[in-house]
Amino acid sequence: MSLHIKGIAASSGIAIAKAFRLENPELNIVKKQISDIDAEIAKLDNAIQVSNTELEKIRDHANAELGEDKAAIFSAHILVLNDPELVNPVKDKIKSESINADFAMNEVASMFVQMFESMDNEYMKERAADIRDVTKRVMAHLLGVTISNPANITEEVIIIAEDLTPSDTAQLNRKYALGFTTDIGGRTSHSAIMARSLEIPAVVGTKEVTSKIENGVMVIVDGLDGHVIVDPSNEELEEYKAKKEKFELQKVEWAKLKNEPTVTKDGHHVELVANIGTPNDVEGVINNGGEGVGLYRTEFLYMGRDNFPSEEEQFESYKSVLESMGDKPVVVRTLDIGGDKELSYLHLPKEMNPFLGYRAIRLCLDQKDIFRTQLRALLRASVYGNLKIMFPMIATLDEFRAAKAVLLEEKEQLVKENVQVSDNIEIGMMVEIPASAVLADVFAKEVDFFSIGTNDLIQYTMAADRMNEQVSYLYQPYNPSILRLVKMVIDAANKEGKWAGMCGEMAGDALAIPLLVGLGLHEFSMSATSILPARSQMAKLSKAEMEILAEKALSMSTAEEVVNLVNSI
Amino acid sequence: MSLHIKGIAASSGIAIAKAFRLENPELNIVKKQISDIDAEIAKLDNAIQVSNTELEKIRDHANAELGEDKAAIFSAHILVLNDPELVNPVKDKIKSESINADFAMNEVASMFVQMFESMDNEYMKERAADIRDVTKRVMAHLLGVTISNPANITEEVIIIAEDLTPSDTAQLNRKYALGFTTDIGGRTSHSAIMARSLEIPAVVGTKEVTSKIENGVMVIVDGLDGHVIVDPSNEELEEYKAKKEKFELQKVEWAKLKNEPTVTKDGHHVELVANIGTPNDVEGVINNGGEGVGLYRTEFLYMGRDNFPSEEEQFESYKSVLESMGDKPVVVRTLDIGGDKELSYLHLPKEMNPFLGYRAIRLCLDQKDIFRTQLRALLRASVYGNLKIMFPMIATLDEFRAAKAVLLEEKEQLVKENVQVSDNIEIGMMVEIPASAVLADVFAKEVDFFSIGTNDLIQYTMAADRMNEQVSYLYQPYNPSILRLVKMVIDAANKEGKWAGMCGEMAGDALAIPLLVGLGLHEFSMSATSILPARSQMAKLSKAEMEILAEKALSMSTAEEVVNLVNSI
Repeated sequence: MSLHIKGIAASSGIAIAKAFRLENPELNIVKKQISDIDAEIAKLDNAIQVSNTELEKIRDHANAELGEDKAAIFSAHILVLNDPELVNPVKDKIKSESINADFAMNEVASMFVQMFESMDNEYMKERAADIRDVTKRVMAHLLGVTISNPANITEEVIIIAEDLTPSDTAQLNRKYALGFTTDIGGRTSHSAIMARSLEIPAVVGTKEVTSKIENGVMVIVDGLDGHVIVDPSNEELEEYKAKKEKFELQKVEWAKLKNEPTVTKDGHHVELVANIGTPNDVEGVINNGGEGVGLYRTEFLYMGRDNFPSEEEQFESYKSVLESMGDKPVVVRTLDIGGDKELSYLHLPKEMNPFLGYRAIRLCLDQKDIFRTQLRALLRASVYGNLKIMFPMIATLDEFRAAKAVLLEEKEQLVKENVQVSDNIEIGMMVEIPASAVLADVFAKEVDFFSIGTNDLIQYTMAADRMNEQVSYLYQPYNPSILRLVKMVIDAANKEGKWAGMCGEMAGDALAIPLLVGLGLHEFSMSATSILPARSQMAKLSKAEMEILAEKALSMSTAEEVVNLVNSI
Repeated sequence: MSLHIKGIAASSGIAIAKAFRLENPELNIVKKQISDIDAEIAKLDNAIQVSNTELEKIRDHANAELGEDKAAIFSAHILVLNDPELVNPVKDKIKSESINADFAMNEVASMFVQMFESMDNEYMKERAADIRDVTKRVMAHLLGVTISNPANITEEVIIIAEDLTPSDTAQLNRKYALGFTTDIGGRTSHSAIMARSLEIPAVVGTKEVTSKIENGVMVIVDGLDGHVIVDPSNEELEEYKAKKEKFELQKVEWAKLKNEPTVTKDGHHVELVANIGTPNDVEGVINNGGEGVGLYRTEFLYMGRDNFPSEEEQFESYKSVLESMGDKPVVVRTLDIGGDKELSYLHLPKEMNPFLGYRAIRLCLDQKDIFRTQLRALLRASVYGNLKIMFPMIATLDEFRAAKAVLLEEKEQLVKENVQVSDNIEIGMMVEIPASAVLADVFAKEVDFFSIGTNDLIQYTMAADRMNEQVSYLYQPYNPSILRLVKMVIDAANKEGKWAGMCGEMAGDALAIPLLVGLGLHEFSMSATSILPARSQMAKLSKAEMEILAEKALSMSTAEEVVNLVNSI
């Protein structure tokens, strides 16, 4: 009889193939006295060299297949590998204790890993994982052990693993790795995000696939519903082949909408645009029929490096995105760093509640040099396309005015320097803090547009950290209070003849879309792969009917009532 | 010429007297080899014994003068002093290394202090300060050094200190310590809070009083405006004597209002009630003309001890408050623990953003045993007075319904057990999360009353941690968005014939009061000492005029505009 395992649907689609267990070998590290110290150090240098070459390959592969932001982690790994603070203590240990390189590296690495892990800081914990990943590679080379390389797979398989490291996922070949399933991880884990980028069906967080699935057994990964079927019966195989076919037909259907406008069945137009992190993501936006970029997260330009990007580097990135998008709108969000996003070279204070702390526009208005460099790069790039600029985490009108004033100062300065700057740059703001939603009518008089950032807006409105599992039940996009705040923003925009978009996860959520259409949201910004399904869904909705639906939802008492209401249509 | 030093006004009033520098001696701890180990351990036991007696005296003095909640810290100190985890390692060190007790204790204490301080957790850092305070006392006894004891002061003085420890402040004798001023601290530091309880004028955070003021020089502490005048001229002395007299006349004026109702000059009644922490605080409420208790913070019952308070202990406390208040209303808030408030015996998870985490009703609905014990104690006490119960941190209607259901279950159970329970207990909720303010109309149908907790409501609405100095400029009680949320709550209550109060700091703030009267707030709950000034202020306001003022404020753009508006009346 077949075995059914339930997990988290992390990347949609159905994959059917034989299981391939991806296992990382245990390294057997034993302390040895060595006599030829120079030879041992040469051996270490060589292992580092080989690892470096491998990581560069993985990075380049990731860059080509997954985009620059996903590849950034491997640039960071290469930095770790070549960090004298890591390598020198290893060499010192070899020299002073006359011991083998793998043992010395293991000692030093453990020390750093322990130090970073004890810091009780998500960012530092990830750094600990990076060090573990990188040093394991070097030690494997020192010991002559082959570490797993999914790139070597040459037949169609489903990958079974406890977890996939970023380097594992980046090396997956779409041609052969038809799907994967893991014991741990969630929808927002590294491997899940990469699976969606690669469009490989995936089910994560199953807790038990590695203990239940042998190599070579037939496996179905249902990334639509989060099921894994091991050793399926013929009936099940037929059922899932049919489901796979239906999903693929739907994808073909969606693809037909690629160059179509987004229109409800009663003729109401909205704009479907994409969230991007790097210039490489633009290709996906165009391939998925995006009508523009609704959120260009500029943080990635600043991450995985050891100092600030220069004005010139930034200019090149912004120009590249604007040129690729032609006359389609590109909404760039200025630097949103701090909170859970840190930079190694920007020494931020340790905060008790970083989500309620010094971040985004608060930091930019305080450290204006960082802000001015970015604004100059944006202004210079503005002549290459249809640029709109928005500021993140605006809580008060004073902040918006201050940020806009800096922007206008830099513009004036560039004009003085005879640098060309567009005169049609819309200046808007993110609405992600309850105060700015409640005061949207006041803001609407001074901004050109709003973009509602639901991820933060929900967590502040409900006072619940969305990363904290113990209160995650309070992260309620369909709570009537959230819908009312969204309505306040849209109504305020309408009243002043401005437009309101949304760039949080809610904008691409099939359950939220009917409500958002009903509330009159103008622009929906989502991950590129959600655009065609959303366009297809909207074509079946009537704006007039959705208005009635939204009106009902606004007067409801709980999130559950709203979900039931939407599910009833 | 006199010297003017600016600081933070921490406790109101004017004090004029000679300076008395309160200095804690440096302890000179040197490692010594000892031969008689038993004698050394006996010496240690004796020093602990003496310290224990002193701390008990300080605690009892604090209990009588300052109330139980302020005294709790010394109970905690006594626990530290007798903790075998602290004392045993010291004895072990004396035995195994044959060293002197003061050196051994210093080593062990430093280790604990370092450990707690490195934990990056406000609560643990305070524990580090406790250990430092307690062990210093023991080591001083071991070395035969006298540590400062403000209780020994027998002439009228102004205390000058770098900082005052809780034990220093608790020992101040109001008769002689006319005022104090410190280098460090803020309005919410321990010493400031105690100064207000003792009604001693205080200016803190001056940075330089200890370096600028010699013993015996004449000093004026102006706790109204936050000024310290050293060696004042005759004109200045006269000026401040007049100011002091005026303030005292005002206090007499206020005292006349003690048994009067709170009425605006156009005849509108509101209720002025007090926030309390323990049964001992009731005396202050009555002395200050409080019309009830608007917020009984039950956390103190759970703090400074090593296990949960029993149902019986809680019952006694609640009964005592209810009986003392007679038929006046007593609004009890159920346990609000978590966030920045921890209990040593309740092992809460370490959270990245505790203010957005597992706390208050979230914890109580998850760990229902804790909740049920408190509710039973409250229900049993309900027959002794006019009890109202409210739940903290309600974000969704589901939570309110769940909490109310547990309360009704316990009530039914008690009735079955033939225990008397009042049938007139109003059940309400705190509004301190933006979602519940936005949905107040929905909640109003099911609650008996609202109490707006502005401290949290402001920090969530502005997404700014009020304890974080880098974003404290965003903690804006007068931001129009906050006023709009407050209005939503009051209007919702009115529509359903319920009442709305406020128990955050804003309720007692002279700048906010005109706006809150205008918005129609029914109940104002504040620290007891603010009640008479507030009653006096309200008697001079016209409700009708304040309605117009509030209407104007609601349409304003920034907090600054609102402040200017209120200041213009």
